[in-house]
Amino acid sequence: MNRISQITAVDDNAYSQAKNIWDSIAKPLGSFGLLEEAVQRIAAVQGTPDVRIDKRTAVVFCADHGVVAEGVTQCGSEVTAECARAIAEGRSNVNAIAASCNADVLAVDIGIASDVDCDALLNRKIAYGTRNFAKEPAMTREQTEAAIQVGIDIAGDLKSKRAQILVTGEMGIGNTTAASALASILLRVPPRKVTGRGAGLSTKGLLHKISVIEHAIELHGSYHTDPLLMLQCLGGLEIAGMTGLFLGGAYYHIPVVIDGVISAAAAAIAYKMQPKCRNYLLASHCSDEPAGEGLLRMLELEPVIRAGLRLGEGTGGLLLLPLLDSTLALYRNAHRFDETSIERYTMQL
Amino acid sequence: MNRISQITAVDDNAYSQAKNIWDSIAKPLGSFGLLEEAVQRIAAVQGTPDVRIDKRTAVVFCADHGVVAEGVTQCGSEVTAECARAIAEGRSNVNAIAASCNADVLAVDIGIASDVDCDALLNRKIAYGTRNFAKEPAMTREQTEAAIQVGIDIAGDLKSKRAQILVTGEMGIGNTTAASALASILLRVPPRKVTGRGAGLSTKGLLHKISVIEHAIELHGSYHTDPLLMLQCLGGLEIAGMTGLFLGGAYYHIPVVIDGVISAAAAAIAYKMQPKCRNYLLASHCSDEPAGEGLLRMLELEPVIRAGLRLGEGTGGLLLLPLLDSTLALYRNAHRFDETSIERYTMQL
Repeated sequence: MNRISQITAVDDNAYSQAKNIWDSIAKPLGSFGLLEEAVQRIAAVQGTPDVRIDKRTAVVFCADHGVVAEGVTQCGSEVTAECARAIAEGRSNVNAIAASCNADVLAVDIGIASDVDCDALLNRKIAYGTRNFAKEPAMTREQTEAAIQVGIDIAGDLKSKRAQILVTGEMGIGNTTAASALASILLRVPPRKVTGRGAGLSTKGLLHKISVIEHAIELHGSYHTDPLLMLQCLGGLEIAGMTGLFLGGAYYHIPVVIDGVISAAAAAIAYKMQPKCRNYLLASHCSDEPAGEGLLRMLELEPVIRAGLRLGEGTGGLLLLPLLDSTLALYRNAHRFDETSIERYTMQL
Repeated sequence: MNRISQITAVDDNAYSQAKNIWDSIAKPLGSFGLLEEAVQRIAAVQGTPDVRIDKRTAVVFCADHGVVAEGVTQCGSEVTAECARAIAEGRSNVNAIAASCNADVLAVDIGIASDVDCDALLNRKIAYGTRNFAKEPAMTREQTEAAIQVGIDIAGDLKSKRAQILVTGEMGIGNTTAASALASILLRVPPRKVTGRGAGLSTKGLLHKISVIEHAIELHGSYHTDPLLMLQCLGGLEIAGMTGLFLGGAYYHIPVVIDGVISAAAAAIAYKMQPKCRNYLLASHCSDEPAGEGLLRMLELEPVIRAGLRLGEGTGGLLLLPLLDSTLALYRNAHRFDETSIERYTMQL
């Protein structure tokens, strides 16, 4: 946790150098939009305009949520363990997407409610799921900090393995309930504005989920100024793990891609804990879950993909990588102005 | 041109079969959003749920615009020839992006204002640029139909070379002026609502461009019901070529990807000529040019990328391909429900 105060600013000089490279390419200035900017932002994180994102890992934090006891989901917590095992063994959705993007997948048990006998699943279990935040704080302060530290340490481990970009992912039945509760507090809007159907709730189920969140927020009170307390009361172990990965990415100068709404909630907590980490984050897609847009806006990040993705596991975040690969192909290889006579193409009248 | 009336409906059965495959994957139903739907739409075009998009070509139609004489652009028509040569010789922006997406690039001179001595540039020149539509119709009816036929024939040629998906691209100084004029007529909104800065006009330049378009629309009158006449009066040779490629794609059952606003205007004309061709089209990104959103809405297509791309050449359209590749990796390889015990994961409460 002491790493968090040691996070430094990104390298503005590398950002400018990357912008100069873009501006030397024979095309209208800025015409590759947010993707140009993403390359500049990665340059600032990596401290060089020679951006490299070949070594890439999706880290999928898996944990359970006590609030599932309130009937806010359409399947039980046992599904978390099954999906975590499938991810660790390379059989799940994220593995197919990751293979297509040349990314590794690291599945982490940071709080699954049962013991999962699977060597490929990294065991960093802090607890057997959170407590039911409709009745008591989801975690203790110690658990919350320990889960954040797991994320920071994983960023450090991956840095030592030369990771150049990380993607956050999660698996945890009930975690859209936690993310919506956090989004409500973070964005200071009523739960109904930031609560969605998760994996596919009915309207009746949705209304129940909203009332559970309303009740929980009332129970725990308002704590706008303490992000760690928000996370402790209403968050989850996998959310805290992702918060740690964002903070660790910032500490170790690795860009970290936000996936969907749960990941965005974790990123927003990380930002509240250490505003400097914002410049180490990359938005990928904006999910259909209603909180996504608001959380990214709070972070002043714009997603490039808007495709109604709400699969989780890090799948949407991974899709940013091939877009960046193509963008870098342009950045590195395109015909430059000094090799052509089209000098005026980018000029303003 | 007689191909246009012979365009048939897409295969709804293949669409349903693809949907069934998606629904068999262990993930929340529909949770890969517009990308799931894109696979289903390609299945409908190809007539099989075994979707294949490995053989892929970006067709970049290059032509000049007489309206450049009105001072609506910040660079002259000679840039079209230079860029067309660079594209044909593999040195331009689209070539870098295409290489990263494993796509071929076919550059077509369908109406460049000069003779371009370049073997790699396919010569299908209909005229040395259009006429100045601020003074007279951009093309004759014969030229318009001939340019459409070029696009249809290229779709046929590529079909015989086993193309599985096509991406439209264009290069033509002045063509955002033509596209905005067409968008104004097609969407029945004033030019100021659908006219943007193109490659980088100043505010003064933008206001002039708008007044040129307003004048031209007044000159040629209103012709809401005749898409061919719209194209003839206010379009361009490369726009007509793209219209032909969309129609040819529909005739030959190849999905065709819309790029930016100029491509979207061509697609809208194709749709007005033959509504059945709509189901053969795929949206990719929505550009910053103001007409883009409205034209795609007219086509009832939703873009998946919103990144402020306005580079042209087909670069934005190509970016759909790696997203589809990853989506197909999931579609083909993901862990299926019948192999797991997570039956209830996708069920509705």
